[in-house]
Amino acid sequence: MKNYKTYFWLLLSVLLIFSCKEQVTDNSDHLPSWNDSSAKQSIINFVKDVTNEDSPTYVSPDDRIAVFDNDGTLWSEKPFYFQLFFAIDRVKELAPKHPDWKTTQPFKAVLENDMETLFSFGEHGLLELVMATHAGMTTDEFAQIVKNWIAKAKHPRFNRPFTDLVYQPMLELLGYLRANGFKTFIVSGGGIEFMRPWVEEVYGVPPEQVIGSSIKTKFEMRDGKPVLVRLPEIDFIDDKEGKPVGINKFIGRKPIAAFGNSDGDLQMLQWTAGGEGNRLMVYIHHTDAEREWAYDRKSSVGRLNKGLDEANQKGWTVVDMKKDWKVIYSWSE
Amino acid sequence: MKNYKTYFWLLLSVLLIFSCKEQVTDNSDHLPSWNDSSAKQSIINFVKDVTNEDSPTYVSPDDRIAVFDNDGTLWSEKPFYFQLFFAIDRVKELAPKHPDWKTTQPFKAVLENDMETLFSFGEHGLLELVMATHAGMTTDEFAQIVKNWIAKAKHPRFNRPFTDLVYQPMLELLGYLRANGFKTFIVSGGGIEFMRPWVEEVYGVPPEQVIGSSIKTKFEMRDGKPVLVRLPEIDFIDDKEGKPVGINKFIGRKPIAAFGNSDGDLQMLQWTAGGEGNRLMVYIHHTDAEREWAYDRKSSVGRLNKGLDEANQKGWTVVDMKKDWKVIYSWSE
Repeated sequence: MKNYKTYFWLLLSVLLIFSCKEQVTDNSDHLPSWNDSSAKQSIINFVKDVTNEDSPTYVSPDDRIAVFDNDGTLWSEKPFYFQLFFAIDRVKELAPKHPDWKTTQPFKAVLENDMETLFSFGEHGLLELVMATHAGMTTDEFAQIVKNWIAKAKHPRFNRPFTDLVYQPMLELLGYLRANGFKTFIVSGGGIEFMRPWVEEVYGVPPEQVIGSSIKTKFEMRDGKPVLVRLPEIDFIDDKEGKPVGINKFIGRKPIAAFGNSDGDLQMLQWTAGGEGNRLMVYIHHTDAEREWAYDRKSSVGRLNKGLDEANQKGWTVVDMKKDWKVIYSWSE
Repeated sequence: MKNYKTYFWLLLSVLLIFSCKEQVTDNSDHLPSWNDSSAKQSIINFVKDVTNEDSPTYVSPDDRIAVFDNDGTLWSEKPFYFQLFFAIDRVKELAPKHPDWKTTQPFKAVLENDMETLFSFGEHGLLELVMATHAGMTTDEFAQIVKNWIAKAKHPRFNRPFTDLVYQPMLELLGYLRANGFKTFIVSGGGIEFMRPWVEEVYGVPPEQVIGSSIKTKFEMRDGKPVLVRLPEIDFIDDKEGKPVGINKFIGRKPIAAFGNSDGDLQMLQWTAGGEGNRLMVYIHHTDAEREWAYDRKSSVGRLNKGLDEANQKGWTVVDMKKDWKVIYSWSE
């Protein structure tokens, strides 16, 4: 009987010891949607190196900052940035209140579903769309508008919610890094307040770890209640040279790992590479026309040209979506 | 012998169970430098309310965001903001390279230790000092300059490093909140890059949880190495109406607790109070001329006038430094 008791306590102790241990990487595969490839291996090697306390390459958890572009890196970006679908839907919804839009560009093009004309107005035209559809309301109101849209809007190719077009291998990667003590940040050219209402649920990234482009806001009292009103005025463009600026402003230290897919991410990868010690720079290369899209040097959306050259030249990791990913989306084969 | 073993395992299990438990508030006093007062009690009651899972006032850890002003709330701010001591020391150090400063205001006033004249130039004069002393170098260089200064500069009244002038009761409060699952942020009118090099060590607040005023930076390649160069151009003023704007931009959700000491913090407290559910708004009232400084409605630095009225009217917590704090600085009686 006493022996039995002893074994009981022994077992309990052992169980507790195991349940007590800090979450550490075991030998099981945290990246099951990744084929065994040099890309996968370079990621795993990097994580092992910076988390190994006995190694000179060890990095303390505080400094394990990983930054991720969003469009084309965490979710798809074709036929054009998903935020533009949102802006277009907003124009159509707001049109009854703006009869002049029927005859005024770029709104006319949107209302006539004439994408070719819309894009002919270039960045300036798109900016006008954003200002007309993203400003004028409070931040709380805008967050609700985004939530409503993301819950019901569907991607034209797959007829599925846009959030179904996040990459399963990247979700696994986010989780793998966090399980190894990394703080994961999104650093996107997309709107910061367009992302925050849904990225925590989808990517597990809290609002305070989302960096993006923004318009200005203004503090006001409305009926004794404080609000922030969104103004039709650019505050910050978090793209290209803006990405290191945004990282420095919001995070205040250099990342040790950076993930992007376009020339818009090049400076972020350069900034990350510029730090001392072990660094991981990764480009996601869109090579799978069948399961997703294939594009790089000549694409108008998500062009990867200079970045691909620099990655090859400097030995950065390039993920070949077609070869390296078993699955693109969680629901696809 | 078997009995002995049983007790051993029993003891081990009990120890492990206790060491396993998530860190929770026990009954010991986390705020030993606080006298028992209504202020201390309001803080403790709030923390108990939002961490009690069985209560309707429960707040999930993700949303336990607490924001703290810095100057006058976490450390002293007299005879003037400590960052101005830094700017003055920088002017004196850089003066040999700027012979024109001997005859040009506001630099002339600084070099002649003529504070009265310096302050007569108002905000514009101070801004000119900041631009001349805080810009023109890379972000890494500036961080090193701040680190060197904070390590050796001394406060004129106490002849001690400025970081000795942090409030011991507030350090305990930061720790108490973090032990209860709060994420603590600094939201200061001071320079974001003036604070980041030292606040992690002093307050336990990591760089990515520091929000402040900033100048613009520009990404550049220098000898193949990426740098961010600090430009003499205002990016953001994190004061008054700017504080809710900064909180929304950097954190992306509303705090549930806010701590300030001046009218510059009023909008931050209003913004915090404007959320739903249980909220804690606290003003630190400087009432102790002997151990620290006594000032409020008429002070040019850290004026607390409108804020004091609103706190009284709305029943916010007002901490009376003289009565409520046993100790001001860790080294003082």
